[in-house]
Amino acid sequence: MEKPYVVGIDIGGTNTVFGVVDARGSILYSGSIKTGKYAEIDDYVTALGQSLMQVIDQAGGPDKIKGVGVGAPNGNYFNGCIEFAPNLPWKGKIPLAQMISEKIGGIPVTLTNDANAAAIGEMTYGVARGMKDFIVITLGTGVGSGIVIGGNLVYGHDGFAGELGHVIVRRHNGRMCGCGRKGCLEAYTSATGVARTAREVLETSKENSILREMNPEEITSKDVYDAAVKGDKVALEIFEFTGNMLGEAFADFVAFSSPEAIILFGGLTKAGDLIMDPIKRSMDANMLKVFQGKTKLLFSQLKESDAAVLGASALGWESKEQVD
Amino acid sequence: MEKPYVVGIDIGGTNTVFGVVDARGSILYSGSIKTGKYAEIDDYVTALGQSLMQVIDQAGGPDKIKGVGVGAPNGNYFNGCIEFAPNLPWKGKIPLAQMISEKIGGIPVTLTNDANAAAIGEMTYGVARGMKDFIVITLGTGVGSGIVIGGNLVYGHDGFAGELGHVIVRRHNGRMCGCGRKGCLEAYTSATGVARTAREVLETSKENSILREMNPEEITSKDVYDAAVKGDKVALEIFEFTGNMLGEAFADFVAFSSPEAIILFGGLTKAGDLIMDPIKRSMDANMLKVFQGKTKLLFSQLKESDAAVLGASALGWESKEQVD
Repeated sequence: MEKPYVVGIDIGGTNTVFGVVDARGSILYSGSIKTGKYAEIDDYVTALGQSLMQVIDQAGGPDKIKGVGVGAPNGNYFNGCIEFAPNLPWKGKIPLAQMISEKIGGIPVTLTNDANAAAIGEMTYGVARGMKDFIVITLGTGVGSGIVIGGNLVYGHDGFAGELGHVIVRRHNGRMCGCGRKGCLEAYTSATGVARTAREVLETSKENSILREMNPEEITSKDVYDAAVKGDKVALEIFEFTGNMLGEAFADFVAFSSPEAIILFGGLTKAGDLIMDPIKRSMDANMLKVFQGKTKLLFSQLKESDAAVLGASALGWESKEQVD
Repeated sequence: MEKPYVVGIDIGGTNTVFGVVDARGSILYSGSIKTGKYAEIDDYVTALGQSLMQVIDQAGGPDKIKGVGVGAPNGNYFNGCIEFAPNLPWKGKIPLAQMISEKIGGIPVTLTNDANAAAIGEMTYGVARGMKDFIVITLGTGVGSGIVIGGNLVYGHDGFAGELGHVIVRRHNGRMCGCGRKGCLEAYTSATGVARTAREVLETSKENSILREMNPEEITSKDVYDAAVKGDKVALEIFEFTGNMLGEAFADFVAFSSPEAIILFGGLTKAGDLIMDPIKRSMDANMLKVFQGKTKLLFSQLKESDAAVLGASALGWESKEQVD
């Protein structure tokens, strides 16, 4: 009989969250441990293995689990390693998929980065069901992407494809990016990018704004959203600027893979039409004629608190194929 | 017995060239007709069908032909149509693959655009043999691309993916492009783009140059090459500028699909190291750290006079898969 469940694990810098998931995308049993508590990777994997076995046993034991999927920063699908992840406590190249598998009776474990997990999640349980060609853009602390072409996630020859947060959107006088280069999409449209835009606009504009009541260094993208909802002109201008950058970049992405949809995922999507409308306007204005009006712009439909675990778990369904 | 040959057809605005090709990429029998001579598509297809049957009969008849591949401007792989091709005499949407097939006894005919045909040609007979992930950039009158991911050509949801000549490389004060937008890669790095750069550099620079002996309006990319070979500083600066643009764009392409190689094809590649060296320098300087030094930059290995026919013919080998 086909094994009925998969396990998804989302590894973040603070928490590691996991759950047993069925074919409909319901999380049946879940748990979490503190990532940051474990300075040694061996201690972390031991603790994670014990907690995983608890939920696996609740689900009826290892025989019920088809596979385990892990979404982790800098996760490489090809070799199952986390490689030099700046936000995790363990340095160097860590064969995490294999280490986890050994702790849970050899259930196959597949690993990829968070944005790829989000894309597989959308395809398996979310708004991309039935789509063969789409791109997920994650708008959070950073900007990531998962690209699906012909029904398959794009990994590239080395497992690291899909770094669309690091295409250059401003060639001259671009903002410094965390990657060490200048003008990356992420430097403008991540949560920290939006906060930086807020400080720049407040400096250059004379418009009144609720945001002026705050210490500029402490303004977050959430504050900008709260102000925009109240109709604050400066906040709306910040979303306009951010949406414009995204729309320009998306038009170029479409020239590459001509996706059926671009799907937005992550914190910034809470802004709804405040961010969607300027992106749409900019995307239309910048699109090559042959692609105009063809690519849908959608929000993720995965419940946010569950999305990371669901996305990672979706990898588990592919376990068979990967043994080859 | 497996059918031993395929037929490749390259449709250009002036000539239509075709040939019977074996599995090693040798063109056994070939011919051509004048594309521009036929104002009516029916007359064109009738003439093409007759000429095709001559080479097919030389090869032993239709039973020896596994499939026919056509490379044509604005060719859509999904529906076998040429759609609104500005450089061909026939307007609107023409079901060319089906029309040709009917003239040659029902041999399956597959159609795609020229750049995609070049990519399949490289994968089947050229420098990309054995590669699963690569991008072919065609540098000719225009700039086109064929993208291969996981061993498959990327068509996108509508058949038009891979318009990398039309990503925006200059967001502000970009050059007008033939597509109606500004700042496209093609506006800088096509043959006409290089000629335009020549005129701009001659105007702004005070450097002596062989190119100053010509009427600026008549300078071609070939003239720039001839001058660069002689060590002309202005000509070398033009290649430096062009290579810099390409390298910047290639670094972004790598962030998308992380290809094993980017392969250059077409007229501008005759410049050899004069164009390759500046591209390499710029690509390295602009590359995200995780991709540095990983993607090869190569020239096409297909003999130029045969490349278009070979590329198109390679589609013929896939004929079986497409019947599904």
